[in-house]
Amino acid sequence: MAPQLDAYFKQVDTLAESFIERLRKAVAIPSVSAEDERRPEVIRMGKFLQAELEALGCSVEARELGKEPQREHLDLPPVIVARYGSDSKKRTILVYGHYDVQPANLEDGWATQPFELTVDDKGRMFGRGSTDDKGPVLGWLNAIEAHQKAGVDFPVNLLMCFEGMEEYGSEGLDDFIAAEADKYFKDADAVCISDNYWLGTEKPCLTYGLRGCNYYSVEVSGPGQDLHSGVFGGTVQEPMTDLVRVMAQLVDTDGKILVPGINEMVAPLTDDEKALYGDIAFTMDNLYESLGSKTGIFPDKEKTLMARWRYPSLSLHGIEGAFSAPGGKTVIPAKVTGKFSIRTVPNMEPAKVNEAVFKYVNDVFKKLGSKNSLKVWNNHDGRWWVASPNHWNFTAAGKAVERVWGVKPDLTREGGSIPVTLTFEESLKKNVLLLPMGSSTDAAHSINEKLDRRNYIEGTKLLGAYLHYVAEEPTGA
Amino acid sequence: MAPQLDAYFKQVDTLAESFIERLRKAVAIPSVSAEDERRPEVIRMGKFLQAELEALGCSVEARELGKEPQREHLDLPPVIVARYGSDSKKRTILVYGHYDVQPANLEDGWATQPFELTVDDKGRMFGRGSTDDKGPVLGWLNAIEAHQKAGVDFPVNLLMCFEGMEEYGSEGLDDFIAAEADKYFKDADAVCISDNYWLGTEKPCLTYGLRGCNYYSVEVSGPGQDLHSGVFGGTVQEPMTDLVRVMAQLVDTDGKILVPGINEMVAPLTDDEKALYGDIAFTMDNLYESLGSKTGIFPDKEKTLMARWRYPSLSLHGIEGAFSAPGGKTVIPAKVTGKFSIRTVPNMEPAKVNEAVFKYVNDVFKKLGSKNSLKVWNNHDGRWWVASPNHWNFTAAGKAVERVWGVKPDLTREGGSIPVTLTFEESLKKNVLLLPMGSSTDAAHSINEKLDRRNYIEGTKLLGAYLHYVAEEPTGA
Ligand SMILES: [Zn+2]
Ligand SMILES: [Zn+2]
Ligand SMILES: [Zn+2]
Ligand SMILES: [Zn+2]
Repeated sequence: MAPQLDAYFKQVDTLAESFIERLRKAVAIPSVSAEDERRPEVIRMGKFLQAELEALGCSVEARELGKEPQREHLDLPPVIVARYGSDSKKRTILVYGHYDVQPANLEDGWATQPFELTVDDKGRMFGRGSTDDKGPVLGWLNAIEAHQKAGVDFPVNLLMCFEGMEEYGSEGLDDFIAAEADKYFKDADAVCISDNYWLGTEKPCLTYGLRGCNYYSVEVSGPGQDLHSGVFGGTVQEPMTDLVRVMAQLVDTDGKILVPGINEMVAPLTDDEKALYGDIAFTMDNLYESLGSKTGIFPDKEKTLMARWRYPSLSLHGIEGAFSAPGGKTVIPAKVTGKFSIRTVPNMEPAKVNEAVFKYVNDVFKKLGSKNSLKVWNNHDGRWWVASPNHWNFTAAGKAVERVWGVKPDLTREGGSIPVTLTFEESLKKNVLLLPMGSSTDAAHSINEKLDRRNYIEGTKLLGAYLHYVAEEPTGA
Repeated sequence: MAPQLDAYFKQVDTLAESFIERLRKAVAIPSVSAEDERRPEVIRMGKFLQAELEALGCSVEARELGKEPQREHLDLPPVIVARYGSDSKKRTILVYGHYDVQPANLEDGWATQPFELTVDDKGRMFGRGSTDDKGPVLGWLNAIEAHQKAGVDFPVNLLMCFEGMEEYGSEGLDDFIAAEADKYFKDADAVCISDNYWLGTEKPCLTYGLRGCNYYSVEVSGPGQDLHSGVFGGTVQEPMTDLVRVMAQLVDTDGKILVPGINEMVAPLTDDEKALYGDIAFTMDNLYESLGSKTGIFPDKEKTLMARWRYPSLSLHGIEGAFSAPGGKTVIPAKVTGKFSIRTVPNMEPAKVNEAVFKYVNDVFKKLGSKNSLKVWNNHDGRWWVASPNHWNFTAAGKAVERVWGVKPDLTREGGSIPVTLTFEESLKKNVLLLPMGSSTDAAHSINEKLDRRNYIEGTKLLGAYLHYVAEEPTGA
């Protein structure tokens, strides 16, 4: 039986202006985690959130994470954990969000003050953090408040985990989640994260997969110090020549990875999976618009989405130690370090990817016949994540989307990684759902970040509706 | 008949301490042309030189070059031109040097204060500008003074041209020389520049050739802005991939230039020329010491020196627009510009080199089948220079070296360029000789720059002796 949601929805509409006011207050706190001098603002934002949650009757704890490693003069902002309800007959859902934001300065080209929420006549609410991730975080608080004011029973026990360092590496969070998995988080039956975006602007989506990332450095060195190309050019084997020749053999113009063994690790495409792509609301024009060019590799949407979501890719990011400024300098750099990364997908094992990369890079270098030295290492790797979109957590969310938006959601994956997703899955061994609120045009990490009023208000309805459906969804597949 | 030089030599020895004192005063003026705030010190150094020259009875002019282009708040230091003697029966020799110096800070690792001349117990005189180029410039003044005090007739009319912007691009000098070629410099019969170094530490040399340099940029662009490799990796043709693949096809590990047509432009090696290399005082250990490694291309001295002096080379300097900092960043750069240069030798025409490079780079890129755009252009080119070592200017200098140092000089070329050399040759149509004073260990542009007392004092003798021999040398070959 479909949940009774009309009273809740009506209440959300009634409270819409006060919800926007809540977002305005949050955006006004410049909680930029990357800037030393604004770290106190991050902490102030945590306190704001704590006070709001307490006012709603949640039990809240600000869990300190200590000093920032390597930068001991800075306090890490606390993780704000909260619980609303503890009825053992109800399911318990753990939600995650972050209350810190990306840096923003008017001079970067913002059309409005980045830390003043500015709503235009199209209902676009501009402000740093509006969509990433203050809007979605406050969505959960709004949902609680609307239930209370509508007199509708809250359908689940809600556990909340809001961190303040997401935009700066989530320092300390993995350990915290692992430590609390069978303590604060032990009742959680499923996890929901609202910190990503629709694929376009019109159709909501549920996200069930993320690519991982193995990041590499390859260093070639020879001379004891940088040399002048006039004096030494033609007499010495140049590290930059060797490095460029190695990097040129990693990937081709059409993105084909040339490292043997990598493509063989990829899970084969099944007919079922293939069938998912046709209906996705995405066009090549969407791609071209976001690229700002027509330099895509594939001519059609299916291949493009598969390349983004379910196939690996290799990108060359740059070279450290070479001349990189404007103008001309006739240097022979003594030591240069190329940076590249491989986006990983099922069933690529990070360690096996490393092994294949190390072997290949060394082989290619050996064939150059150089007297220079080469070192290659992995800077970091983050595993890919894929959840089952047939799990009750997803099917419930799908029904909620259909109820609020009148359309079945796209089932999407993403090309990038959201490391906390995997951390929750691995620590809690529960299904994790990514349920985005904002749309593809929100410009999360850019100037003029915004959240549409419609996405915020309907999104608040969606978060509440999701909790109702997930409370009732049978434990199926 | 060999010139009578004993009285002059003796006087130089007598005045040695006062010559060192003159150098001490010059080094104490931090005439760093590259630093805005020290530009007045460069001008002060010009005035010091002017006063010293006037005290020796030279007629001196400080020729203003106006404001620095693009940086109109800065005055260019004047060119100090001077004449000593105007006897129409004597030859007139034009000498060039520069009175500005490279930057130097104690914190860079200097063992002594860089602007205090510090003489150690091995006679090494440490100080910025000691060898580059204040020592050689003052050598000419010392030679005049010693002739006066010894009562020896000065053998030539001496024209002097000392500039103050050499270490910062010789702004304005080319135009000045061209304009004065048939005015201030019109009597010059030959030119002598003392602003380079011996190949080693024991054997003097005369330098008769320099390589030129054609500098290139190759830009690949596609997307409208930098992209995130998570979101776009695998779906877009990446400019960095294309650029690296193009750069990898320019030169191989052993320095072989892969641009068709370039190697064919090189003047063939004659037996006469080949024979010059065997005797040159240079060893592979000299190379390894200056490299700080054993990563040379050739196993023997002859091939190494030929590669440095008389064959072209191609060096990859770096990439602008890619990620170049330490650490990891998962960017797909939207526009990247590779920098490389080709050192040129006879008979490579800069314009034909450009043509070959442009065609090849475009061809290689075309074969990649990329939708990105490529542009390649020449940033600047400086022609190679080779003089005849059989000219009387050189044969006279060779005799002077033998007289002072007791050994025939090596006839050397250099891999780098000294643009003013070509400017003098082309503007005055006279033979130009490079007659170095310092040795290979002087560390001209590095920390702990020095000039050996021996090279300064014997070098002063050499400059004077050269003027005697060049006054008498028959106009031969
Ligand atoms: Zn976020
Ligand atoms: Zn973010
Ligand atoms: Zn110099
Ligand atoms: Zn210099």
